[in-house]
Amino acid sequence: MTTETERLQDLIARILPLDQAAMQSAAFRQNTLTKPPGSLGRLEKLSIQMAGITGQPIPRILHKVVAVMAGDHGVVAEGVSAYPQEVTPQMVLNMLGGGAAINVLARAHGARIALVDMGVAANLPTHPQLIDKKVAKGTRNIARGPAMSPEQAIQALLAGADVVTAQLSEGLDILATGEMGIGNTTPSAAIAAAILQRPAEEIVGRGTGVDEEGLTRKLAAVNLALKTNKPDPKDGLEVLTTVGGFEIAGLAGAILAAAAHRKAVVIDGFISTAAALIAVTLAPNARAYLIAGHRSQERGHRLMLEWLGLEPLVDLDLRLGEGTGAVLALPLVEAACKLLAEMATFAEAGVTDKEENEKVA
Amino acid sequence: MTTETERLQDLIARILPLDQAAMQSAAFRQNTLTKPPGSLGRLEKLSIQMAGITGQPIPRILHKVVAVMAGDHGVVAEGVSAYPQEVTPQMVLNMLGGGAAINVLARAHGARIALVDMGVAANLPTHPQLIDKKVAKGTRNIARGPAMSPEQAIQALLAGADVVTAQLSEGLDILATGEMGIGNTTPSAAIAAAILQRPAEEIVGRGTGVDEEGLTRKLAAVNLALKTNKPDPKDGLEVLTTVGGFEIAGLAGAILAAAAHRKAVVIDGFISTAAALIAVTLAPNARAYLIAGHRSQERGHRLMLEWLGLEPLVDLDLRLGEGTGAVLALPLVEAACKLLAEMATFAEAGVTDKEENEKVA
Repeated sequence: MTTETERLQDLIARILPLDQAAMQSAAFRQNTLTKPPGSLGRLEKLSIQMAGITGQPIPRILHKVVAVMAGDHGVVAEGVSAYPQEVTPQMVLNMLGGGAAINVLARAHGARIALVDMGVAANLPTHPQLIDKKVAKGTRNIARGPAMSPEQAIQALLAGADVVTAQLSEGLDILATGEMGIGNTTPSAAIAAAILQRPAEEIVGRGTGVDEEGLTRKLAAVNLALKTNKPDPKDGLEVLTTVGGFEIAGLAGAILAAAAHRKAVVIDGFISTAAALIAVTLAPNARAYLIAGHRSQERGHRLMLEWLGLEPLVDLDLRLGEGTGAVLALPLVEAACKLLAEMATFAEAGVTDKEENEKVA
Repeated sequence: MTTETERLQDLIARILPLDQAAMQSAAFRQNTLTKPPGSLGRLEKLSIQMAGITGQPIPRILHKVVAVMAGDHGVVAEGVSAYPQEVTPQMVLNMLGGGAAINVLARAHGARIALVDMGVAANLPTHPQLIDKKVAKGTRNIARGPAMSPEQAIQALLAGADVVTAQLSEGLDILATGEMGIGNTTPSAAIAAAILQRPAEEIVGRGTGVDEEGLTRKLAAVNLALKTNKPDPKDGLEVLTTVGGFEIAGLAGAILAAAAHRKAVVIDGFISTAAALIAVTLAPNARAYLIAGHRSQERGHRLMLEWLGLEPLVDLDLRLGEGTGAVLALPLVEAACKLLAEMATFAEAGVTDKEENEKVA
């Protein structure tokens, strides 16, 4: 596996800081546009971030891709989910049929879905729209031992990166992250508790809607997973290996690859943000490439976003995952870029600027 | 003016409560779709509201219109704005040229702009894209007396309503509101302080960015306007007449007409929300047709939305107006409707439902 480890290290090394010159250029242009300075609020900052990410003073978004990674979780044996594990492959098939929420939103906003089997615990059919990167049929139970081997973790990270690299050739200007996996808020909570070094009680929520007893079992499972595995919070690979998931690893790898190629990543909710925690722990430079699509209703998501230093674009009490919150935010990122690119300047429009006015007065 | 008064009363009388049967049908369908119940959060509620507004169990949005109403304000004589009054016609021309922020966003989201001169204090050119409803060349100074006559207020309300009625024939499924008018946060603040019965200090903000001295003058102007005019907070027409504006009246009329035709209205920021306060004071049934596009950075907007009982969809520190915050929110409303219309049900997709699962377990 040395070669694979080297590939991962190489990927991480290729993630560079944002382009300061492009950001300065975008910030300068913002102040020449026909609006009071700063009046477009966070959209102005977002356009400047996009300039820094892409290295383009006037960034453009043509191709949008949402990577939806699916995987199963041994920890469902602890009774942590409101739905049975069979729902994971059923929902993958629903996505292939175009009937899931993420399909509707991707169609609405012109985003391409890259649907990936990272580790579903079922034999899925061969399908032109399903990318097979299955590492294993689900992880092992994190409450009883590590989720996967270190080799599997690296394999899954690189598989996720490869998905993004392959998508680049079809056009990818911005990546949204999404997932499907019954039980995956449990490893995500374990990842967050480990990396944020916060009590599981502050992180664990109801996921798809477990009842009070289910929530108690889930909290116990996360605490047991952390006690059993004791992952080093500074070691992203160890956290992923011990308490992670295959789809979470795939998303972390996708984030790393997007950042290495200077593409923005709009992260979705609780699970995608857990993947971002892994990615940023592995590669701190990746943080600047992240945009938080939304704030999930799931407990702990707020703390995870704070740790990442991200302010979500949308806050609509969603808790569905699949990438829905990320894709909902795409039009806002596009709007930010288009405003920077297409608005007239004061000079072009012959509008009296505030400073000019002050000079006259 | 009796006929005009009757026309206004008739318009108000035609605004009916939401369609409860359509709402129940939409709510029922939401719980059959392939997602945990409630996991689409406020988008589910929004789809149900849209059903109630339109009377359609599965509402569709095809045609989007943003009404951008322009007007000038005599109160600029008090030194309440950071920009000179000439910027109002200059920005109208910028909008006709396609270079303003609202043009960029309307193009991005496929919304038609209905640009209306309600009372700009300049001779604007005849232009196929400019709707001439000029009541007068700006209002009178509200700090010294009423903004307009009661006849002008009714004329402006009906003109705004007529704009919407005319747009209906070209297709209008949802209306967004916007405006342009140097100084118009001042009458808007006066309207809000009057109707909410709150001190002006809690409402008045920096608008396009007045300095500390300008803010002091603005606060004094609003307090003087309220003291001079003493509008009855329960009388929407009196508030509008005494401390309003022509573009604010036009927007209030547009809201009434949209509601009378069972069309949703996405309101923008501070000024549009002041128009909504007038509309709802005139016609309490209109409230249910409103969707708050965003929360403006302008002080007082939060209180105005609370009074209306509205929770904004987007909160990105915008304070530009023009309808930008309303149009930014349109894709979220469209997404809500499309999710309701296009998602597969559990039965259609062959996905195990939670209740079914509980039955089996």
